[in-house]
Amino acid sequence: MIQKELIGDFKLKWDRIQQAMQKMNADGCLLTVDVNLYYTTGRIYSGYFYLPAEGAPWFFVKRPNGLTGDQVEYIRKPEQMAELFAAHGLKMPEKLLLEADELTYNDYMRLQAIFNPKETANATALMRNLRQIKTPHEIEMFRISAERHAKTYAEIPECFRPGMTDLEFQYEIERRMRKNGSIGIFRAFGANMDIFMGSILAGDNAESPSPFDFALGGGGMDASCPLGANGTVLKDGTAIMVDMAGNYTAYMTDMTRVFSVGRLTDLAYKAHQTALLIQSEIENIARPGTPCAELYNIAAKITENEGLGAYFMGTLQQAKFVGHGIGIQINELPVLTPRSKELLELNMVFALEPKYVIPGVGAVGIENSFLVTETGLEKITQFKEDIIQL
Amino acid sequence: MIQKELIGDFKLKWDRIQQAMQKMNADGCLLTVDVNLYYTTGRIYSGYFYLPAEGAPWFFVKRPNGLTGDQVEYIRKPEQMAELFAAHGLKMPEKLLLEADELTYNDYMRLQAIFNPKETANATALMRNLRQIKTPHEIEMFRISAERHAKTYAEIPECFRPGMTDLEFQYEIERRMRKNGSIGIFRAFGANMDIFMGSILAGDNAESPSPFDFALGGGGMDASCPLGANGTVLKDGTAIMVDMAGNYTAYMTDMTRVFSVGRLTDLAYKAHQTALLIQSEIENIARPGTPCAELYNIAAKITENEGLGAYFMGTLQQAKFVGHGIGIQINELPVLTPRSKELLELNMVFALEPKYVIPGVGAVGIENSFLVTETGLEKITQFKEDIIQL
Repeated sequence: MIQKELIGDFKLKWDRIQQAMQKMNADGCLLTVDVNLYYTTGRIYSGYFYLPAEGAPWFFVKRPNGLTGDQVEYIRKPEQMAELFAAHGLKMPEKLLLEADELTYNDYMRLQAIFNPKETANATALMRNLRQIKTPHEIEMFRISAERHAKTYAEIPECFRPGMTDLEFQYEIERRMRKNGSIGIFRAFGANMDIFMGSILAGDNAESPSPFDFALGGGGMDASCPLGANGTVLKDGTAIMVDMAGNYTAYMTDMTRVFSVGRLTDLAYKAHQTALLIQSEIENIARPGTPCAELYNIAAKITENEGLGAYFMGTLQQAKFVGHGIGIQINELPVLTPRSKELLELNMVFALEPKYVIPGVGAVGIENSFLVTETGLEKITQFKEDIIQL
Repeated sequence: MIQKELIGDFKLKWDRIQQAMQKMNADGCLLTVDVNLYYTTGRIYSGYFYLPAEGAPWFFVKRPNGLTGDQVEYIRKPEQMAELFAAHGLKMPEKLLLEADELTYNDYMRLQAIFNPKETANATALMRNLRQIKTPHEIEMFRISAERHAKTYAEIPECFRPGMTDLEFQYEIERRMRKNGSIGIFRAFGANMDIFMGSILAGDNAESPSPFDFALGGGGMDASCPLGANGTVLKDGTAIMVDMAGNYTAYMTDMTRVFSVGRLTDLAYKAHQTALLIQSEIENIARPGTPCAELYNIAAKITENEGLGAYFMGTLQQAKFVGHGIGIQINELPVLTPRSKELLELNMVFALEPKYVIPGVGAVGIENSFLVTETGLEKITQFKEDIIQL
């Protein structure tokens, strides 16, 4: 069930969940959504992962056939878990954690009826909190993603042909992503966060407000997926913001770079330099213990000093964050907002993305993925940061 | 809010929902998941669509900025809907439909607390039932998808190079899909149904059991997305089953064709011909009123007569359906299972996919998308059906 060479990393995760459960007097945690199964077992299956507050986990599997290992039990329906608890003399949990922000209402009610606990608590909140702090193997996966992410970005200038649209440009980049090992799938937390392979914003499409909780919008190519490239022709004087997924392992890096067709306006270059200044100021001060709100406030203050407030994180609609945790999902915790109460902690991995939208030009700015180390930040997405003229 | 030229189509959908609500004595239906918003409004937004049992719908929008129209109201949080109901003198629903199989538990509980209805019922079940019967505009969208789907499949032989892997082959097909207008996004109903752009199965990878509820499996390229191509080298004697998405509009066609490297075994050709026979037998008898179970039973019976039961819909794990409704999601209703109680109805659109997995060779068989007309079935995915030698 668990890949042998990674057993230490999984035990580290299970220990952390158990410590958290013991603190909140929970007896067990039942996980079933894809990201939490992948996090705790290294695979996605149809079934459940049950971790008691003490002892080894149980794996209840509906599909696929053929998984083996300690405490692996095949079931056809979740009700059989109660029978298996009885058969193995396992204590039914009095306080049970269920994924209340991810399970559907009906699935949650069904599981609650099966276990009939005295009390339930929210496994989504717990797991999202614990998943902030990355393990050695997770950090290794980010490094692989970052390297391939940079390799793809280095190939972007080859993707450009004069007169092409943002979509045609994106298709060429997607192809290179896949050849460099992109898994394709792009996971986000929350309802209606539909995105395909990332986002490319050119010219005034960068102003289009989005229904989603991503940093910027874009009209998209179809009303059924209103995000990103919309068929804009890449003409002279256009900024092209490339924010394509770093999904080369299950742990996604997030990296944005700006390309230009010909020269942009002075305002666009000034805004881009301001984003780089924000990044370097934050790199100077951030370390374990730094409030996440402070990172946002630095960005907002520098933006204000430069008189760029009207362009910061959008124009017609402005995102109220300047970065976010990354991992198996692109929008993990913490979120770098002015109201955040969270502090940076050792081994958090987050994306910092100060961006400006300049009407008539497009979006400029920067995004990199950072690991919080004992002494500060380590930038794991390494690639040139100036605007790259195509 | 609603595209003017499509208002008739949307009114048709709203009328059907209202008729169903009146039958079940429901007072209102609140929808918020992406597919239901797209179905009822033609767009995806962050917010809610509220349809009372009589009268015009309300659109409660959080994002994006700038939507206008009758009964469009901006909100920051769902609690404001109750205030707006009061302000407009709208009756609060005593029996409210909520998306119980799609909303998270916490979102459902929050909406229930806001409206505090005497009774709730399942909007997911209602909408999935109604969405089976397609409107004229939806059928038009399927026809566009089908045409582009066939155009891409006609380009598949150009994608092949001797010695390449299934993944390399898939990347070339994906690129042509995008150039032919694929939106990229692939929507499926249900938890943990992760898939990227479709599935290609070559050789014995077709035997790999899947955690998902798709017809066949495949190991996939990474444990975080265990489906489809896995790096198999396309060597002589290999069958390559191509089941890539028909997502050229929001209404996806589903079409599978088999390609071969060199000649396959006689058993593989026999199984392929059997799949074509199943398809033609079903085309002969299916019409409005035909039980869905009968379609499965025809497939099972022909399979048994040919002695191919061990290969039908997989080997190590066998799917227990031979087709399914399609639409905004790839796995809509009805499902063609032996236990189905449903009957075909006019304007249903479904995929029929009799498939066999032949050890040592790969998967063979056929899949097409059919519209149920007054007189029978219309095949909307038109493309040659024999095994195509590369």
